[in-house]
Amino acid sequence: MMMEIQPEPFLTFPESWHRHHLLDLESLSADELMTILNTAAAFKSETQGFRRKLTALQGKTCANLFFENSTRTRNSFSLAARRLGGDTIEFTSAGSSIAKGETYIDTARNIEAMTADIMVVRHSTPGTPLRLSKHVDCCVINAGDGPHEHPTQGLLDIMTIWEHRGSLEGLTVALVGDIAYSRTARSNIWGLKKLGAHVIVCGPATLVSRYWEDFGVEVVYSLDKILPRCDVLNLLRIQFERQHTRPFPSVREYALLFAMNRERLARAKEDILIMAPGPINRGVEITPDVADGKHSVILDQVTNGVAVRMAVLWLVSGARDRKESSR
Amino acid sequence: MMMEIQPEPFLTFPESWHRHHLLDLESLSADELMTILNTAAAFKSETQGFRRKLTALQGKTCANLFFENSTRTRNSFSLAARRLGGDTIEFTSAGSSIAKGETYIDTARNIEAMTADIMVVRHSTPGTPLRLSKHVDCCVINAGDGPHEHPTQGLLDIMTIWEHRGSLEGLTVALVGDIAYSRTARSNIWGLKKLGAHVIVCGPATLVSRYWEDFGVEVVYSLDKILPRCDVLNLLRIQFERQHTRPFPSVREYALLFAMNRERLARAKEDILIMAPGPINRGVEITPDVADGKHSVILDQVTNGVAVRMAVLWLVSGARDRKESSR
Amino acid sequence: MMMEIQPEPFLTFPESWHRHHLLDLESLSADELMTILNTAAAFKSETQGFRRKLTALQGKTCANLFFENSTRTRNSFSLAARRLGGDTIEFTSAGSSIAKGETYIDTARNIEAMTADIMVVRHSTPGTPLRLSKHVDCCVINAGDGPHEHPTQGLLDIMTIWEHRGSLEGLTVALVGDIAYSRTARSNIWGLKKLGAHVIVCGPATLVSRYWEDFGVEVVYSLDKILPRCDVLNLLRIQFERQHTRPFPSVREYALLFAMNRERLARAKEDILIMAPGPINRGVEITPDVADGKHSVILDQVTNGVAVRMAVLWLVSGARDRKESSR
Repeated sequence: MMMEIQPEPFLTFPESWHRHHLLDLESLSADELMTILNTAAAFKSETQGFRRKLTALQGKTCANLFFENSTRTRNSFSLAARRLGGDTIEFTSAGSSIAKGETYIDTARNIEAMTADIMVVRHSTPGTPLRLSKHVDCCVINAGDGPHEHPTQGLLDIMTIWEHRGSLEGLTVALVGDIAYSRTARSNIWGLKKLGAHVIVCGPATLVSRYWEDFGVEVVYSLDKILPRCDVLNLLRIQFERQHTRPFPSVREYALLFAMNRERLARAKEDILIMAPGPINRGVEITPDVADGKHSVILDQVTNGVAVRMAVLWLVSGARDRKESSR
Repeated sequence: MMMEIQPEPFLTFPESWHRHHLLDLESLSADELMTILNTAAAFKSETQGFRRKLTALQGKTCANLFFENSTRTRNSFSLAARRLGGDTIEFTSAGSSIAKGETYIDTARNIEAMTADIMVVRHSTPGTPLRLSKHVDCCVINAGDGPHEHPTQGLLDIMTIWEHRGSLEGLTVALVGDIAYSRTARSNIWGLKKLGAHVIVCGPATLVSRYWEDFGVEVVYSLDKILPRCDVLNLLRIQFERQHTRPFPSVREYALLFAMNRERLARAKEDILIMAPGPINRGVEITPDVADGKHSVILDQVTNGVAVRMAVLWLVSGARDRKESSR
Repeated sequence: MMMEIQPEPFLTFPESWHRHHLLDLESLSADELMTILNTAAAFKSETQGFRRKLTALQGKTCANLFFENSTRTRNSFSLAARRLGGDTIEFTSAGSSIAKGETYIDTARNIEAMTADIMVVRHSTPGTPLRLSKHVDCCVINAGDGPHEHPTQGLLDIMTIWEHRGSLEGLTVALVGDIAYSRTARSNIWGLKKLGAHVIVCGPATLVSRYWEDFGVEVVYSLDKILPRCDVLNLLRIQFERQHTRPFPSVREYALLFAMNRERLARAKEDILIMAPGPINRGVEITPDVADGKHSVILDQVTNGVAVRMAVLWLVSGARDRKESSR
């Protein structure tokens, strides 16, 4: 009556990995980052081609607990879990018990009690996943906590560069656009720095803070000035829906100064990588010809998102299993 | 091309179980209740620990047909079905064909025709699952029909007491709070009485009817009066969202008279069990220190919810299969 | 660590099938239609009875990309995919990235990049699935594009007639009601004609165009006139929610002239088949006694919907696999 689980994995669990949670990239070591990237690459090559379904999470349940809406990230995590043979449950704040006066910690503990093994959490308040990780026994993965961090987005961006260049060491990576409100920027900065890249943040002064200089990040307000020496441009979305004041006079002006277009591409390095976390605003941060052009690795980012999430799900739940079995 | 289904179950199907539907606890015998509890306990011990995925519902489809919204109960049923290897489909009234003028019986018959084997139904009208069971061939499970019954909630409450005490016989169980509007109360009362418990219903006179005395239930309007002799307190949620009139002067007054807090706990039996069907209103029917304290078995209830639903799904669909194969 | 996939299929892949997409029935040959019907019948008989779960889509992902809402068609596709062992992801326009300014082609390419193998698309604009099929590598299935086509609905209607009569050749099939706005009517007309049926479209002049006469379809404005010679009546839903003008004076008048009721049934052929794509408006296009009577095959249509969709999912993805492996 039981499905047979084949004993030999195509991948041995990395001895050096001990984390039950993935809350940020800031606290990860370069070794831990590389463990995730190597695992993700192994999963990616294993599931493509034959498109085989794995069983690493067989019998485990991954709960998506999204207090902020997100179809894309939620689907990516969900797909990653199911491709590893896991079950998923979806919990969104709309229509949930939150509306009936429940605290989010009670919601999380309830979901855990339904025997969830991993909880993927998105919340508008920074630190929510960290706080939850202290109230539940299951693994917690941060899927974005306000403007703080979005570690799997950082990882998929870094994996995409690593895949195309073999190493991050010595590369110049510019994050362009909305740095102030962007958890993606923060996760990228921590991860890229640890792996030896030189990071530039670039955008209108209202969206880019000099604060980052204290962490060895270069802060520049002109895209044209840095363009010739960038190996990678990561064009962050202007999150119109998050802004209540106008950080720049007009979209047209923003595009004039910061959009990546054919003319700017001509002045960039010949092998420059153009990245953008979706959904992209065509004509705002990127023109269609560049988005669809040969330098663009935007869709690789999406594919790597599933691979990175498979890796993280497997690593955190594996670390927890090993700890439990050693008790 | 077929997935192998291992022939030997870890559990033999109970010969005495013949029901294709679970519509209420009122009509179940004590033996049938114990069959469900024993099956649930077997599933619980089998799926925890190794967290193995079972195949009892392999190839079967369980449809959640919720005309009233519920994330929690829906997820619990869904998880139970998938942990048994079944597929699930979700049907909620929002955005469904109901809005296009279809009757709920037509909706149900359509879902059945998609070859659903089991239908889990929640509806605001008492008797809807019973009525549906006469119009479809598939198994019907009541997941709450207005103020009538919510049998799996009753079962998970009873299972939690049974797990902690070994038997229901002779225990004094008080249901506190909103008895009038509560299908949970009704299912608990029928189940507890059949298994030999003494049941007290307790709350403001506006929410507790003397009607229950006809069924051997004790009706008391003061929590303090019954506290010293209770083995179990089940603190029902005040369903603010269901009430159009005010059944008591203020939440503060309700909490003063009926909330379980540290001071009341000191006057209770030393081994009292504190239960509450979530989501709990902290500070209304229960204070945080009691909800999180050593007497609380609130999260056990949630875990047992999945086990009880696995048992019910397996029993009803197994009874139907046996009948079909004996034709 | 891998789930074993049994090598021998119960069905060999039809050599003559080469399409990666199913966009309409207009461009299909009679042979291709019969390939789908035969495959669907094989899947239907294989999954009923033993209700075994198949593995034809094991490791593949089917994305439901519904820009127009539909619980029923979406669930039918989703169930079909999972019954073949595939994974599913759901993408609805509400709450998705569309609202963040993304084009639908970018949305589709993103979903594909998550390694979706098949995309099931519904959109209010005719031609959207065709246009998408030119921008993605994965298989595209049209699940309804405005008033243009809804090929799997056409196929399930045709399969239902074929099952009951053995052949379409020479049968007289009338489509009654809202022909003008109906993609179901269009898909039916193309499919039925190719398989040798005589097709009549019948309804109020405001909803039925003489245009169809150019394609060998008989256009009649009176149901009573054609009733005695019809083998099949397919009673299309009056889509009240799509109409901004009133195509007829009143629902009562429509029912008087076009509803199928007991009295009309008495004047029809003895073995007439009564069909209706749900959700039905009881008392408008059909009376309850006829909907639930012995001539009605309405629920067979629903069951065949899952079978037809299993067939289409398997055929398009199989054709794509064969092409890739022959590269």
